Amino acid sequence: MAEVRPDELRAAVEERLHGLGFDARTAGLIGDHYLDAELRGAATHGLERLRWLAGEDGIDPRARPVLFERADGLGRWDGNGAVGYVALADALAAEADDRPAGARLVVIERCFPTGRLGWFAERAAANGLVCLLTATSPARIAHPDGGPPALATSPLCLAVPGAPPAVVDVSMGRITFGDVLAAAAAGEPLPAGSGVRPDGSPEDDPAEILAGRAGIRPFGGDQAHKGLALAVLVELLVAAVSASPGFAAVALLAAPRSDAGRRVRDLLNGRRFPGDGSRARREAALARGSIHVPDDLWDWIRR
Amino acid sequence: MAEVRPDELRAAVEERLHGLGFDARTAGLIGDHYLDAELRGAATHGLERLRWLAGEDGIDPRARPVLFERADGLGRWDGNGAVGYVALADALAAEADDRPAGARLVVIERCFPTGRLGWFAERAAANGLVCLLTATSPARIAHPDGGPPALATSPLCLAVPGAPPAVVDVSMGRITFGDVLAAAAAGEPLPAGSGVRPDGSPEDDPAEILAGRAGIRPFGGDQAHKGLALAVLVELLVAAVSASPGFAAVALLAAPRSDAGRRVRDLLNGRRFPGDGSRARREAALARGSIHVPDDLWDWIRR
Repeated sequence: MAEVRPDELRAAVEERLHGLGFDARTAGLIGDHYLDAELRGAATHGLERLRWLAGEDGIDPRARPVLFERADGLGRWDGNGAVGYVALADALAAEADDRPAGARLVVIERCFPTGRLGWFAERAAANGLVCLLTATSPARIAHPDGGPPALATSPLCLAVPGAPPAVVDVSMGRITFGDVLAAAAAGEPLPAGSGVRPDGSPEDDPAEILAGRAGIRPFGGDQAHKGLALAVLVELLVAAVSASPGFAAVALLAAPRSDAGRRVRDLLNGRRFPGDGSRARREAALARGSIHVPDDLWDWIRR
Repeated sequence: MAEVRPDELRAAVEERLHGLGFDARTAGLIGDHYLDAELRGAATHGLERLRWLAGEDGIDPRARPVLFERADGLGRWDGNGAVGYVALADALAAEADDRPAGARLVVIERCFPTGRLGWFAERAAANGLVCLLTATSPARIAHPDGGPPALATSPLCLAVPGAPPAVVDVSMGRITFGDVLAAAAAGEPLPAGSGVRPDGSPEDDPAEILAGRAGIRPFGGDQAHKGLALAVLVELLVAAVSASPGFAAVALLAAPRSDAGRRVRDLLNGRRFPGDGSRARREAALARGSIHVPDDLWDWIRR
């Protein structure tokens, strides 16, 4: 592991993104998303994805999302070939600039990948808007009764303005797809019961999930049907308000009517609040002034 | 248990509601909500609540919700002393009559009780609208680390148009508050691990939860922090878009852009789809032509 200063890492990442054809603004945006994920310990949304992005065909670094439908309370966008991070960030920023006095549903079709939704929702909340955000992505979760991978990991994220904003971000799998990648890279089995085979029996071999021959089990333990139902809810919601069959992101933006973060924090009376661990890890890494990056990845970034 | 024909039960329930001062329309609406819950085997949202309603002070059977804010993409209503079932049903019906070409957030403040949200969301879907619906209610869920009951059971419900509509309805507790009432009435302990004491240890005595000295554990098993985070998400969302500190319901209504039910059903390829069990129980009870009602409850309804 290399220990890299955050500013040094940011500069190297942005330069790499420049090299891929992104302009200064979008390189800054994508780089910050990756760096923020690393700082929070969510490495599976972090710099390893830069290496993936560099290898992807069909991404146009100059493409930008386009608004194609405006109706009361609704804006529908098309990713238009832009990488999902840029499509989602730009569409949300444009909608926030023309902010709703009430509320607005924002649909971004053909939008992939979107990474860690908390990063986008927190930006909207810092901009004074309540933001409920979800997105679809490749099928990874299988029905707990079995069958092939059928549903996205189905994150559901909410950020509300406050100091700091409250950000809750939950996905419906027992593990993330990033956990599968990490276990495969380390040559280790998955935690028992994380995967499910087509016949419904447990699968602990990450290679089987990577190959699409097994799925991730919904979270919930003996109530995995509840995790499944929530993943179905996300898939249904996104599918219902979009017409393109591809992956999409859906955001509800609303002007706040109360300081909800304070109200709900008071209810939990100092007990661990969702999202606080992630924020604390970020602050600790910044205070420490270094980020751990795998040597080969750091070499690749600077290459 | 009495075996009662559905039409006979409906007539008796509506007469009881008339006796409480509800007019024909609202008696029909509340009666149908209770009867539908009984037919689906969700008795805890069913006729026992009629007995509760009859004993409640401060409910005005003639009260109706009032719209107090209209902004782009938003309608905010106040329950205005109406029973929550009527406040929610009337507000959603009025918004559906003036249906959004795009989408609309509907907030109904001071709205309690709301019962089984699936009933309301499915009506909106039958009316051609996508309906994401949630509501707050008394604190029943405790943090898995302990402390007092802090959060509502926090149902999250989505219905999308289709034949039949797809309806997903998930609450974030390991058990429902109705399960607690039923266990207490039967003099039986709760399933192991259902409750959580202020010190974080398990509580299986329903009387302790009824007395507010223990809470319901969030669902999720060893990942109960995810169930907790989803309950926090619901509380935050409802609090953020409402100004009154009381209980509220929040609905997102949207015009559909695809047949999402078919799309997502195809993904699960015939495996158990959320909500289908509930619908099948209802259809079986109707085909059987009888509903089981506890003798004392049936005697009370006809009294």
